[in-house]
Amino acid sequence: MEFTVRQIAAMLGGDVHGNGDATINMLAKIQDAQPGQIAFLSNPKYENFIYSTQASAVIVSRDFQPKKDVQAALILVDNPYSSFTVLLEEYHKLISYQKTGVEDPSYIGKGSEVGKNSYRGAFSYIGNNVKIGDNVKIYPHVFVGDNVVIGNNVILHPNVKLYAGTRIGNNCVLHAGAVLGSDGFGFAPQEDGTYKTIPQLGNVMIEDDVVIGANTVIDCATFYGDSTIIRKGVKLDNLIQIAHNVEVGKNTVIAAQTGISGSTKIGEHCMLAGQVGIAGHLVIANNTSVGAQAGISKSVKEEGQQLLGYPVFDIKEYFRSYAVFKRLPDLQYRLRELEKKVSQSAEVGS
Amino acid sequence: MEFTVRQIAAMLGGDVHGNGDATINMLAKIQDAQPGQIAFLSNPKYENFIYSTQASAVIVSRDFQPKKDVQAALILVDNPYSSFTVLLEEYHKLISYQKTGVEDPSYIGKGSEVGKNSYRGAFSYIGNNVKIGDNVKIYPHVFVGDNVVIGNNVILHPNVKLYAGTRIGNNCVLHAGAVLGSDGFGFAPQEDGTYKTIPQLGNVMIEDDVVIGANTVIDCATFYGDSTIIRKGVKLDNLIQIAHNVEVGKNTVIAAQTGISGSTKIGEHCMLAGQVGIAGHLVIANNTSVGAQAGISKSVKEEGQQLLGYPVFDIKEYFRSYAVFKRLPDLQYRLRELEKKVSQSAEVGS
Amino acid sequence: MEFTVRQIAAMLGGDVHGNGDATINMLAKIQDAQPGQIAFLSNPKYENFIYSTQASAVIVSRDFQPKKDVQAALILVDNPYSSFTVLLEEYHKLISYQKTGVEDPSYIGKGSEVGKNSYRGAFSYIGNNVKIGDNVKIYPHVFVGDNVVIGNNVILHPNVKLYAGTRIGNNCVLHAGAVLGSDGFGFAPQEDGTYKTIPQLGNVMIEDDVVIGANTVIDCATFYGDSTIIRKGVKLDNLIQIAHNVEVGKNTVIAAQTGISGSTKIGEHCMLAGQVGIAGHLVIANNTSVGAQAGISKSVKEEGQQLLGYPVFDIKEYFRSYAVFKRLPDLQYRLRELEKKVSQSAEVGS
Repeated sequence: MEFTVRQIAAMLGGDVHGNGDATINMLAKIQDAQPGQIAFLSNPKYENFIYSTQASAVIVSRDFQPKKDVQAALILVDNPYSSFTVLLEEYHKLISYQKTGVEDPSYIGKGSEVGKNSYRGAFSYIGNNVKIGDNVKIYPHVFVGDNVVIGNNVILHPNVKLYAGTRIGNNCVLHAGAVLGSDGFGFAPQEDGTYKTIPQLGNVMIEDDVVIGANTVIDCATFYGDSTIIRKGVKLDNLIQIAHNVEVGKNTVIAAQTGISGSTKIGEHCMLAGQVGIAGHLVIANNTSVGAQAGISKSVKEEGQQLLGYPVFDIKEYFRSYAVFKRLPDLQYRLRELEKKVSQSAEVGS
Repeated sequence: MEFTVRQIAAMLGGDVHGNGDATINMLAKIQDAQPGQIAFLSNPKYENFIYSTQASAVIVSRDFQPKKDVQAALILVDNPYSSFTVLLEEYHKLISYQKTGVEDPSYIGKGSEVGKNSYRGAFSYIGNNVKIGDNVKIYPHVFVGDNVVIGNNVILHPNVKLYAGTRIGNNCVLHAGAVLGSDGFGFAPQEDGTYKTIPQLGNVMIEDDVVIGANTVIDCATFYGDSTIIRKGVKLDNLIQIAHNVEVGKNTVIAAQTGISGSTKIGEHCMLAGQVGIAGHLVIANNTSVGAQAGISKSVKEEGQQLLGYPVFDIKEYFRSYAVFKRLPDLQYRLRELEKKVSQSAEVGS
Repeated sequence: MEFTVRQIAAMLGGDVHGNGDATINMLAKIQDAQPGQIAFLSNPKYENFIYSTQASAVIVSRDFQPKKDVQAALILVDNPYSSFTVLLEEYHKLISYQKTGVEDPSYIGKGSEVGKNSYRGAFSYIGNNVKIGDNVKIYPHVFVGDNVVIGNNVILHPNVKLYAGTRIGNNCVLHAGAVLGSDGFGFAPQEDGTYKTIPQLGNVMIEDDVVIGANTVIDCATFYGDSTIIRKGVKLDNLIQIAHNVEVGKNTVIAAQTGISGSTKIGEHCMLAGQVGIAGHLVIANNTSVGAQAGISKSVKEEGQQLLGYPVFDIKEYFRSYAVFKRLPDLQYRLRELEKKVSQSAEVGS
């Protein structure tokens, strides 16, 4: 993982000024960079750093005019920030996918298959009849139950738990401690006041390009053959609760600690902020945006709304009402005064 | 796990019309069923499916009168839905309890005993002086600390963590990542602004027939000899926080992401919805029902109330107040108009 | 772990009445204590128990005057409660730090070092180039990623997960299932409606004397070289979400299920109650106190405030407004009545 300045410039379609043979092994901020590292200069207020940086190379704009001597090699590009982002991404891929092979001891059951260029960390567990694609990274303490199916280019971080029958698409990342397929919370009240467990026999299905945060939980569907479904491109943050039979629509983004109750269907391109709660058996329209800590108790039928409150209504109206809420003691006082006045004037008038 | 239609009919006390020798190995919905599967017909709006289903058998009501030819064998019962539920439960038991034996490598400490017909998955860990009953299923990556006691017919899903001294009754199910016995959150403020940890030396005690959701946390009691207690029949959903010295009464049901602060005692047959918060050192009366995201800061003394808001009050009154809250800007405007009028009429009158 | 009454008295600076040679192996409450155990009497309403207790010794105040015979040996001290707390702490240290050695199988990568007097439980995983100090307890199923650095006297309870590059100071306790270093939740919206993952290349840095609760998640910083920082003496409860690039100031205490969004900086000596939510990119002043379930959407600049509501304002004002909120239907009714009166009197007057 070492490149010359010239190699990096070629990767970015940029031109080199200075020492193109200097070797780079790490990315850094311009104010912190050390020899062997590459930084970028985009915001003019950081310009001073370029004259003192220890970086071996700095990515700059094609129209950058140095006012003093610069020691670092320069790579001239159209947009230094987006070029640096490209490097970040390449670096990220390199480190994410560099683990390969099987560490001992790890466990794999009968009839299970793992594709090529994969990693299985020590103490990872794969049950029976599991099918896993190529380029899948299974970190230590991951549990993959019987009959699970996983696509290509998937990362299961340490301690991800997939109950039997879970299905995962391609290019998904599941963070540490995420649980998929735990029992839905279904209990039938009995006459003696106890509750009988309703067997939860469905599974969880995750489509392609999904990210699932640390310690997030997704319950299985109730019925055999049904799935709790996370559609293509969905991003779920940490510590989220997704109950049984929920469906989350394409490219919807949900922030941490939000909870979706059973059988609710969230539309596409929705944005749910943190700590939102949504009741069961609802349908939320596409492009709905829900503010932090809001609670939804009825279906949202009109697309593209921005909602807040418990229960939710339009976010701007919420803030208008809340502004008055903060003055309620004053309002109450004024109402009382007015009542006195009117009552007095009535007496006077009588 | 394959039965004839006749065997299933006998199990349900039903009568067979058609091929009683057909073999069944799976349950399915009538619209999806394949050969070898059994479905049910309860809701008349699904009746059309019975004439086209691929199912080998369908459970129907004794008074069902087919309008066309039915290929599937029929099992006639009094209540098709509840008969199907019986099958679901039997199936669920079969798959839940089919794992037995010990997978390698697993760890068991000194002086520990595990009853018969048990399962210990690979990478499961059992400490010293642990007593585990019969028919207990310990999935991979489960941690059972020293001196833990577990009854019969318990399922510990992957990665359940039981700190030293935890006690679990019979017929309990703990889902993946549940933590029992972590330190209560107790710190004594010091004069220099730091906090000193108050040692947490009690344990967690779970009675019979309790279900605990994935990634839920139950802290141990503070004092040696005391317990945080979950009574018989309680059902806890995922990602719940139960603090030190809490007691949850019999047959209470708590939905996901709710948090109970230290030393609070929840009554029997309560229902707490999701994301509810309850302050510490309170007593909540039996049969209390708390709506989602509500916050309780004082004890609830009267039984059978339905509560909402922060802090909570009667749920119907909450909704009435909230209806006015949404109109507060209008109320404020009307009050201002009235003030003007009254002020003018006072001027006119003067 | 057995001491004579005389040894314990010496430890506490107390005087012995009765059998100083009796041996003590456990702490207990006076009403529950058994032979071999030591209890304390502080609250006079428990005095009766001292005449019947089975305890081998009881810690009492120097001015305690028994009204009947006492079987137990007495240790006379100035403050029985605080003396007992000292014993609790000693006991706690003993049991917390008694595990040593390496259980099989456990995994340790290349170039990693573990200090003396440490414990590595079975199925614990330590990656490459990890530096771990002295007296560190690593319980089963802990994952320590590559290049992690850990100080002295640290306890990692079962299943703690430290992503690569995490740094932990001295005297820290991390509870079961805590995740440090998972990816920050950062996605760049694309023109086609999908989201592209922004690589998260920073780490998590925990200073000395920090406690982190079970299943709490702390995301890594976005930029390489940046850290999400938890300062010295911070105490975090269970199931908390700390997003990327957050900094939590010295000696701040945060209760369960609270969430802090990305890049927010929490001051020193703050107290956040449970289920609080704080938006991203804010600065919260020192000594801020936030009530349960509150939501903060703007920076808090003035120190020492007590806040509640969503969005938050002064807690006393919140309760005053909320008191009126509960009477809003009545207020609305009174306003309507007043409007009628004024309108009538206007008509009368015209």
